[in-house]
Amino acid sequence: MSATIGLDIGGTKIAGGLVSPTGTILARGRRVTPAHDPDRIAVEVADLVRELSEGADVVGVGVACAGFIDATGSTVLFAPNLAWRDEPLKRRLQATIDLPVIIDNDANAAAWGEFRFGAAGDVDDMVLVTVGTGIGGGDVTGGHLLRGAYGIAAELGHMRVVPDGIRCGCGNRGCWEMYASGNALVREARELVRSGTPHAARLSELCAGDPDKLSGHEITSAAAQGDPAAVELLADLGRWIGEGAASVTAILDPELIVLGGGVADAGALLLDPARAAFYLTQGLQTVCPTSGAIDVMTQAICATPGRM
Amino acid sequence: MSATIGLDIGGTKIAGGLVSPTGTILARGRRVTPAHDPDRIAVEVADLVRELSEGADVVGVGVACAGFIDATGSTVLFAPNLAWRDEPLKRRLQATIDLPVIIDNDANAAAWGEFRFGAAGDVDDMVLVTVGTGIGGGDVTGGHLLRGAYGIAAELGHMRVVPDGIRCGCGNRGCWEMYASGNALVREARELVRSGTPHAARLSELCAGDPDKLSGHEITSAAAQGDPAAVELLADLGRWIGEGAASVTAILDPELIVLGGGVADAGALLLDPARAAFYLTQGLQTVCPTSGAIDVMTQAICATPGRM
Repeated sequence: MSATIGLDIGGTKIAGGLVSPTGTILARGRRVTPAHDPDRIAVEVADLVRELSEGADVVGVGVACAGFIDATGSTVLFAPNLAWRDEPLKRRLQATIDLPVIIDNDANAAAWGEFRFGAAGDVDDMVLVTVGTGIGGGDVTGGHLLRGAYGIAAELGHMRVVPDGIRCGCGNRGCWEMYASGNALVREARELVRSGTPHAARLSELCAGDPDKLSGHEITSAAAQGDPAAVELLADLGRWIGEGAASVTAILDPELIVLGGGVADAGALLLDPARAAFYLTQGLQTVCPTSGAIDVMTQAICATPGRM
Repeated sequence: MSATIGLDIGGTKIAGGLVSPTGTILARGRRVTPAHDPDRIAVEVADLVRELSEGADVVGVGVACAGFIDATGSTVLFAPNLAWRDEPLKRRLQATIDLPVIIDNDANAAAWGEFRFGAAGDVDDMVLVTVGTGIGGGDVTGGHLLRGAYGIAAELGHMRVVPDGIRCGCGNRGCWEMYASGNALVREARELVRSGTPHAARLSELCAGDPDKLSGHEITSAAAQGDPAAVELLADLGRWIGEGAASVTAILDPELIVLGGGVADAGALLLDPARAAFYLTQGLQTVCPTSGAIDVMTQAICATPGRM
């Protein structure tokens, strides 16, 4: 049976999988990312490909990374967490790997994965929103990935949701990912602890009184155990996710929005508020209150476990 | 020479043109829209088609209207300014017209027109933003119209730009069209006149002291004649257009944004502030400050005269 290899080059690790034609992961492997040395990244990738290929009939390698890939799928224009500026990644990898290599943005690859083998297997039009440190996005429209003119479509996290809002790493203010990401959750929780309110007693305890030590995982755990402050923080995050997803829907008109990324693991504590805000803010539904067509416009949000 | 007929069914008039294969309008015609009688609309359309067809070899009829069209291009799900709810427009027109008929949303049709024959003739990825009473949108990606799951993609006017903002006709608050449309321009101008400030003296004069009588055309004329208040109002409008266009760009990644609709006729008084705000807010540029690839990301905004 033929198989393919999928790789995700992140800022800290390179994760890889040997994948069957039906999307089953047959083997996994990983390497530490030598983030500041493009040549060594290629060496580690080639080594991981060799490891995963052993005894398998591998027909191609797909490489995802957290960066802007040019429209031809050859060059990483910019990768915030890697030492890449106009990095000719495809050429560099192809020189060390004797198999066809394709590269893509990690959120695009995740969207395609959910579309082909995951939560969006039964729709032709879907949006993936990955809620992690920031917000990543990918869109499948009519069964095709939305690419855009420069290969950088669906950068959903940089849609502005608040005029004169919080400063974003991109240089602007008020970007969606400043309100609806894991970083936003942690920022808000730390601020709450710092305020000294008794409402944050449990969160303060979890970080031994040092708000800078509080992590997203601790907030999610506290919420799961019923701490009202943590529940509220996740609900706020969910509301921002849902409201932004409604704006994305006005533009991309998906049948399904799939939430991915680490934060999606919070489950119903995040999803229920996200869904409620989404349905409340989804204008195209309320435009048609008397239309029998309202049913076909019922978009849905579902969550998928964090990506590989 | 074969030709096609293009029709735009609006709330007040049905405008039609006989169009050559290269996009030249060979003849024009119009009818008053019997807005509350779907049967009579079909009769008027058929009559206009007969008039425009005289002596021409017409191979098909394209009908645009301001409404949500279903994904199969058959039914108008909802048209705010016409008496249509789940109107089987294609079938109704096809019954009276002995030529192939296709129907589409008016902003989609305008986007396709600009892509095929207009301001976006030399790009494959473009967004049309029509700034009129509200905001309409159409997106061409990789040479194809973006349709979405339910045929209602690119409803750009209902992207939310201000949380808890001004109430929109769609039922939500803070939609882009509440800040960046002709209606928004008139609302702001009337409020300025109503405040009694000497700054609004010229505008007040133009409406004989009755702010409710002030029109968008008068504001644009006053600005063209150098009235500082009117210039400021158009600049505010331009800023909202540019900032919203930057968010749209983060999602759709077009090479060109084409502004259409009546308000675009204001020219540089609107376009210069729109461009300035767009470039300032376009996050993906500032993400790559050190990248040589910055040039290929230089999206542009241009204006096209109001649609037929």
